[in-house]
Amino acid sequence: MIKVGIVGGTGYTGVELLRLLAQHSEVKLEAITSRGEAGQPVSAIYPNLRGRVDIAFSEPDVERLAACDVVFYATPNGIAMKQVPELLARGVKIIDLAADFRLKDPAVWQQWYGMPHACPDLLAEAVYGLPEVNREAIKSARLVANPGCYPTAVQLGFLPLLNAGVIDAEHLIADAASGVSGAGRKAELNSLLCESSESLKAYGVSGHRHLPEIRQGLSNVVSAPVGLTFVPHLAPMIRGIHATLYARLTKPVDDLQSLFEAAYANEPFVDVMPAGSLPETRSVKGANTCRLAVYRPQGGDTVVVLSVIDNLVKGAAGQAVQNMNLMCGFDEQAGLSHIALMP
Amino acid sequence: MIKVGIVGGTGYTGVELLRLLAQHSEVKLEAITSRGEAGQPVSAIYPNLRGRVDIAFSEPDVERLAACDVVFYATPNGIAMKQVPELLARGVKIIDLAADFRLKDPAVWQQWYGMPHACPDLLAEAVYGLPEVNREAIKSARLVANPGCYPTAVQLGFLPLLNAGVIDAEHLIADAASGVSGAGRKAELNSLLCESSESLKAYGVSGHRHLPEIRQGLSNVVSAPVGLTFVPHLAPMIRGIHATLYARLTKPVDDLQSLFEAAYANEPFVDVMPAGSLPETRSVKGANTCRLAVYRPQGGDTVVVLSVIDNLVKGAAGQAVQNMNLMCGFDEQAGLSHIALMP
Amino acid sequence: MIKVGIVGGTGYTGVELLRLLAQHSEVKLEAITSRGEAGQPVSAIYPNLRGRVDIAFSEPDVERLAACDVVFYATPNGIAMKQVPELLARGVKIIDLAADFRLKDPAVWQQWYGMPHACPDLLAEAVYGLPEVNREAIKSARLVANPGCYPTAVQLGFLPLLNAGVIDAEHLIADAASGVSGAGRKAELNSLLCESSESLKAYGVSGHRHLPEIRQGLSNVVSAPVGLTFVPHLAPMIRGIHATLYARLTKPVDDLQSLFEAAYANEPFVDVMPAGSLPETRSVKGANTCRLAVYRPQGGDTVVVLSVIDNLVKGAAGQAVQNMNLMCGFDEQAGLSHIALMP
Amino acid sequence: MIKVGIVGGTGYTGVELLRLLAQHSEVKLEAITSRGEAGQPVSAIYPNLRGRVDIAFSEPDVERLAACDVVFYATPNGIAMKQVPELLARGVKIIDLAADFRLKDPAVWQQWYGMPHACPDLLAEAVYGLPEVNREAIKSARLVANPGCYPTAVQLGFLPLLNAGVIDAEHLIADAASGVSGAGRKAELNSLLCESSESLKAYGVSGHRHLPEIRQGLSNVVSAPVGLTFVPHLAPMIRGIHATLYARLTKPVDDLQSLFEAAYANEPFVDVMPAGSLPETRSVKGANTCRLAVYRPQGGDTVVVLSVIDNLVKGAAGQAVQNMNLMCGFDEQAGLSHIALMP
Repeated sequence: MIKVGIVGGTGYTGVELLRLLAQHSEVKLEAITSRGEAGQPVSAIYPNLRGRVDIAFSEPDVERLAACDVVFYATPNGIAMKQVPELLARGVKIIDLAADFRLKDPAVWQQWYGMPHACPDLLAEAVYGLPEVNREAIKSARLVANPGCYPTAVQLGFLPLLNAGVIDAEHLIADAASGVSGAGRKAELNSLLCESSESLKAYGVSGHRHLPEIRQGLSNVVSAPVGLTFVPHLAPMIRGIHATLYARLTKPVDDLQSLFEAAYANEPFVDVMPAGSLPETRSVKGANTCRLAVYRPQGGDTVVVLSVIDNLVKGAAGQAVQNMNLMCGFDEQAGLSHIALMP
Repeated sequence: MIKVGIVGGTGYTGVELLRLLAQHSEVKLEAITSRGEAGQPVSAIYPNLRGRVDIAFSEPDVERLAACDVVFYATPNGIAMKQVPELLARGVKIIDLAADFRLKDPAVWQQWYGMPHACPDLLAEAVYGLPEVNREAIKSARLVANPGCYPTAVQLGFLPLLNAGVIDAEHLIADAASGVSGAGRKAELNSLLCESSESLKAYGVSGHRHLPEIRQGLSNVVSAPVGLTFVPHLAPMIRGIHATLYARLTKPVDDLQSLFEAAYANEPFVDVMPAGSLPETRSVKGANTCRLAVYRPQGGDTVVVLSVIDNLVKGAAGQAVQNMNLMCGFDEQAGLSHIALMP
Repeated sequence: MIKVGIVGGTGYTGVELLRLLAQHSEVKLEAITSRGEAGQPVSAIYPNLRGRVDIAFSEPDVERLAACDVVFYATPNGIAMKQVPELLARGVKIIDLAADFRLKDPAVWQQWYGMPHACPDLLAEAVYGLPEVNREAIKSARLVANPGCYPTAVQLGFLPLLNAGVIDAEHLIADAASGVSGAGRKAELNSLLCESSESLKAYGVSGHRHLPEIRQGLSNVVSAPVGLTFVPHLAPMIRGIHATLYARLTKPVDDLQSLFEAAYANEPFVDVMPAGSLPETRSVKGANTCRLAVYRPQGGDTVVVLSVIDNLVKGAAGQAVQNMNLMCGFDEQAGLSHIALMP
Repeated sequence: MIKVGIVGGTGYTGVELLRLLAQHSEVKLEAITSRGEAGQPVSAIYPNLRGRVDIAFSEPDVERLAACDVVFYATPNGIAMKQVPELLARGVKIIDLAADFRLKDPAVWQQWYGMPHACPDLLAEAVYGLPEVNREAIKSARLVANPGCYPTAVQLGFLPLLNAGVIDAEHLIADAASGVSGAGRKAELNSLLCESSESLKAYGVSGHRHLPEIRQGLSNVVSAPVGLTFVPHLAPMIRGIHATLYARLTKPVDDLQSLFEAAYANEPFVDVMPAGSLPETRSVKGANTCRLAVYRPQGGDTVVVLSVIDNLVKGAAGQAVQNMNLMCGFDEQAGLSHIALMP
């Protein structure tokens, strides 16, 4: 049983962490902080937690967090990097669900996030928390940068092809759509039901912050810069990411289906569906699963990969718990056995 | 560990039973039958169950069902009553999620369901599976009639007032709305997204089949016929029932809030929210919980009770598992600890 | 051709007014004001108006408004009452879509809206703009208080029964649900898609501002105070109000259907549907229509009336245009012939 | 004033035609046929048309249709081709909203639609009804093949680039999503609210019937076969198509924005939005408009075009009315001035 703290728990990734941790047998929730809601019982804001999570939001307090074994940051970008060094120094393991430690190059971070990095020296140490790529490094990490939601769906879809060296890595296309919860629990006009339901639109076409993160991850695989066009869309639903990936084959491949099945044969949270399947985002709603399907339409030279995750689970809180399990030596699947809610 | 069978598992209550039973530590799923889908793996129709439920639908087969300890009927009305007598005779416990055993009077059944009852002699024995009313009888029952979704939400809301004898039982009003999953997984025009989303409508105003069921349940409490106007509505969402109940006070009541809190103080699945709360159906999405709030607007003589459940959980499959737990001597909460998915 | 101004045009009633007025052959749009968006072309915020409404938002400017024949206020409550006296004095006709002139008693206004009324002397003159009740008075009015959305749906449903004197006016119940656009275009957590979709909840149970407005309107009909319990709900959709009304019959009525049909025989915007109909809110989406159905379930003494409108049209902007047509001597139906969008 | 008939009017394109034609000043609706609903008033199925469309569905009857000036086919694929020759012979102009006359090569038709073509000799005469490409030919056509919904959105997006000869036409990618109304008003499980809301999925990845139609249209422009990967998706909303198009630049282009603006400068129903815009499907809901935006992310060699239409309007019934206007010498915009409903 470990002691766990959450910093910034009022957002959607925060409440999803609470849902998962409250049902995790190895975890005792010690503290959940929120400046704005300090003193409020968590269940007053999230009535689904009534009777299940009995603590109240508290003021951020280093002492209280330093007493935890693991602290999750579910804060806006730029908060964790200011507090993490002290907690690390006091022996706390950190999982940051924001972007602070995802990019290795502080100049790139500053370019996309609009502020200088507060602890660039930690960037090298931070482990990018995609277990399907970095499992062993995560096990011994003190500081894990939990991947973004789009980057998780997109990388898991491209990796088998890049690892096999069969596609043109300079002209990848990732067309993806996210439910509105990806925008967070913020009072913004664009996220109103009346603005975002019954409609679909692209956004961030000129450049989205997840672009450099995906590029960095994919470039590591091929040990060379990759070229990627990434167009995210806002879909009229609460949860879910659907990524449709396009790449040009540069070598003949006998059997793409087998390539994918072999790549993820031992992965508990990646499900390569049978040939001809059409993954639906609802099939992973509430579950820590990525479902994939791979196609080669009309036998041409373009490969199409379909990849779905729940942006709040495998794309955020679930992957964070998976990382915690690895960092703490628990069963990787502990507390992550939820079956998706369908319908 | 008991052996469990499900008859008619392709509908929404069927898949919800599967979701709950697959995560129940005392249960081994032996058989799930479906004439139309026999031979199909369950996970081919419900991809959320991939890797979690590995059996296939099978033809209905008495021998296979007779080998189970408990059999759930998730069939259309009128099926269970033809098969249950034989299974009971062979020692199987039965939980019927359809309406076959809910009404005590076979003439009333025939009037509302349009067919003569196939085993009227079992109606007296069948226990109406609302644990908050019949817990002890359920524990020793062979045959449990699992309540309808509206009847669960409406009865739990009216019961404290009727038990206290403080309202006019001859003029009750239950105005309720259900998500579209209440109509089942049937290819019907009315349930299409294009017909039912972005709209709200009443239905069954002249008379809905849940009316006699609710009347029977409430009449038992006051030992006299109750008068009830029940208007169900179709709401543009997947899951959830919201019931708004109106009754006229006939006696002064000091504190309605305390009356409700006392009534459900020991109930694990009924949550009386603090005074002034507004229960949302999403706060119980996927959870076996009924949340209640009680009001007396402007201090007048009309009481308003708000009651929410997930129609597929506390209104169907979850309550069925709760009944199974009671019938089999398990912890009543076993396998029912899911926290509602929010957002 | 009249000159029209809109004050506060960035909200949903504002854009709906623009949609209707841009297609109205007798109207020239002179000014639309918004402090926050002054200088912005209207079509930058509402791309559906690209190529159709070419003016920009402007700073509120009395001179510009005073040059109009009619000015609509689509502002938050409490704004119009401060500006209207001057415009009236300069000969402008006013239609206020907010609540400033709906209640006749300034003390009641202050009680429900939390501020003293700025021009109580105008309250007697202001005509409550429900044409089905006050058509003649509206024709000669200088100042029209456009009714609230719930009050429109609820009053149109109760009026035939109250006018006929056949129900107990002391114990009326109005259970109603609104789409989220009723909350306006405001960046509020409760109106986020992730907070309000896939859920249903009641609100304002202790007392909603439309309660005194409805009571006043109904009391006028019976020339006595009415008793009303009003429970509004938030439904997971953009547009639409569905009101389900309950009343106890105090006299025998031969034929409720005929009573309703006779009451609205000459009303262009009230559609009494055939007996047994179930009005859907989507059947009036975008149209200035109220559809009604009346029931007497099981032949008992409770009457149930179903009433649907589009909250932004017959419940706001459409009714405002209807009032403008009456005030300006146009065909009452001018510019209001839109057929509801279905599906 | 012309006489118009509709064959197969119970589907969503049928009711949308009715909505548009009922408000078209040059049209008298003579007949609307439906085998299944003959005798039913149209408004009984579509209550939004109550008081606006007073005719009833009738049995298909050649004499009645032959008396019309224009007949629209809103039937399933394969019906029109059997009846059109006779009506053409009797001087009726035909607009087919199904796919029967869209493909020029009867062998390709048979391959994709699974039946031999009933009148292959008419395929050469039939004009593909995309006014932005074939306006003059449509004006003198007897038989117009109304384009599919995806083909309309995709072709309008690619055309300026192909006409300018600046992209690699052998490797086009069209990633598109449609609302559920694209599947028609059919009682199918996949279109249920509970199956299609709160989810996103691709479909037809191996090959969708709109693929050969788009390829044919684009090939005509470049006078050479084009290569296209087309992946449609089902989005959880009623109306709307969003197409995101990807192409590789083969020549330097000074200003893509100007290229698009020039291409559609005189088109009443194509709106090239300002640089940096993000077209939303809701901005065209109910309107006969295609909105476009063009991007060159990070200044690379990949062009991204965003294209939105209402699948039932510019993607079906609206475009059909536009074609009728051209064929009959009316103002091209007659009856098509509806402003999109927003929110």
